[in-house]
Amino acid sequence: MATKTEVSAFIASEFPQTKCVVREVGNRSAVVAHEVGLGELRPGGTVSGPVLMGIADAALYVAILGEIGIVPLAVTTSLTINFLRKPAGSKDVVGVCKLMKLGRSLAVGEVWLYSEGEPEPVAHVVGTYAIPLRS
Amino acid sequence: MATKTEVSAFIASEFPQTKCVVREVGNRSAVVAHEVGLGELRPGGTVSGPVLMGIADAALYVAILGEIGIVPLAVTTSLTINFLRKPAGSKDVVGVCKLMKLGRSLAVGEVWLYSEGEPEPVAHVVGTYAIPLRS
Amino acid sequence: MATKTEVSAFIASEFPQTKCVVREVGNRSAVVAHEVGLGELRPGGTVSGPVLMGIADAALYVAILGEIGIVPLAVTTSLTINFLRKPAGSKDVVGVCKLMKLGRSLAVGEVWLYSEGEPEPVAHVVGTYAIPLRS
Amino acid sequence: MATKTEVSAFIASEFPQTKCVVREVGNRSAVVAHEVGLGELRPGGTVSGPVLMGIADAALYVAILGEIGIVPLAVTTSLTINFLRKPAGSKDVVGVCKLMKLGRSLAVGEVWLYSEGEPEPVAHVVGTYAIPLRS
Repeated sequence: MATKTEVSAFIASEFPQTKCVVREVGNRSAVVAHEVGLGELRPGGTVSGPVLMGIADAALYVAILGEIGIVPLAVTTSLTINFLRKPAGSKDVVGVCKLMKLGRSLAVGEVWLYSEGEPEPVAHVVGTYAIPLRS
Repeated sequence: MATKTEVSAFIASEFPQTKCVVREVGNRSAVVAHEVGLGELRPGGTVSGPVLMGIADAALYVAILGEIGIVPLAVTTSLTINFLRKPAGSKDVVGVCKLMKLGRSLAVGEVWLYSEGEPEPVAHVVGTYAIPLRS
Repeated sequence: MATKTEVSAFIASEFPQTKCVVREVGNRSAVVAHEVGLGELRPGGTVSGPVLMGIADAALYVAILGEIGIVPLAVTTSLTINFLRKPAGSKDVVGVCKLMKLGRSLAVGEVWLYSEGEPEPVAHVVGTYAIPLRS
Repeated sequence: MATKTEVSAFIASEFPQTKCVVREVGNRSAVVAHEVGLGELRPGGTVSGPVLMGIADAALYVAILGEIGIVPLAVTTSLTINFLRKPAGSKDVVGVCKLMKLGRSLAVGEVWLYSEGEPEPVAHVVGTYAIPLRS
């Protein structure tokens, strides 16, 4: 298992371009937050789809690292996103991840994405990660 | 229907941050290419997942615009990606889209993503778009 | 909106081959239960995947009918299932559905499938339904 | 690798309830056919969704067995289906599978489903299988 501090440090060094901040990690779950930049907006002031996917991917990775410890070789194998509502371009996007399964070689989790402070989710993601065999 | 020139102009104005170039469009299909930037690399010299998703999303949108004409309000409703092989960070990523279905309100297509010049795909995407009702 | 009795009667007449019993419906959610038959088992005494998909599909349909009323023309447009644990062949399978979105033409929901009485889910499903335009 | 005869015999003993006939297997691909029964029809004379998913699942399994040999413990881990057109209840359903990836622990493939003799597919499936480690 890895603490919030350990996971945050690892994410910052491994993904220097990510803007996701780790808010919570542990208990097979994670919460991350992402400040939306001007380059991530779509016409109409909403957030582009790939940005949302990236936040969900980060939330999954953080939740997995929180359980298995710092394992650089875990990789996303699949991701399914359903877009539900337009996110507000002026608010942070928050990703709330819960792991459904943490097997020896495969982890599966879901992520709900929200515009900060809004009750209704803007997107839902299911993702799978391949975990390298550990000795 | 929209020509390659029309679609390219629309993409450039609507998505100024995209780096996708439209290579082909028409016949329910599209080919786009994306030059990988330094900020899009992951450790190990591969391309980040959200970048691949964005290229697939663009390929789908281009293929749909090629059929229905310039319709700004078409929006992605879902996207499923399977990551198959590590893309080379030093090569363009090429997205080849074919539409499976083009209904009145829903379009479904698949996209194969390749590192330029390589025979084996790096990822496969299925995406759906909601199309606004046309008069 | 439709009551549990109305939905149950409609399901029984429209899908005479289904064995799903409607336990709850309303509030954008539904619970259905399915008694596993001998012909639905796989070697090892577990339940076949297509049977699980059918139960999830029924749970989604019930939840949607509970909101929009008896609409025979709603059809599944996509379904993504992740298999998490082996279900027990000797127990009913219970499907718990919550709708994520109920738009004018598209509904999206998730379903957790359980072996009756077990705390951990055996599968997770996200499905979308196309809803015919209503006057 | 396993021949068509070997795969057919294995499928018949392991899945006695399946009606899928193996038409072709090899070269990372498979073709299966399924005769639609009365109990598999939906109102309007079309084929129920779970039946289509089962055929796709069988096609994937056959294609994988054709490559790795008879491995009883390979299991489906996820499946995404998009329904494209109504299948004809009076025609066999044919599943054409191609594997996208065959790794050491994970196989990914796509399946196009057709009503026999029709040019346009009725559904598209992407599925993943976990493959047990081989010595």
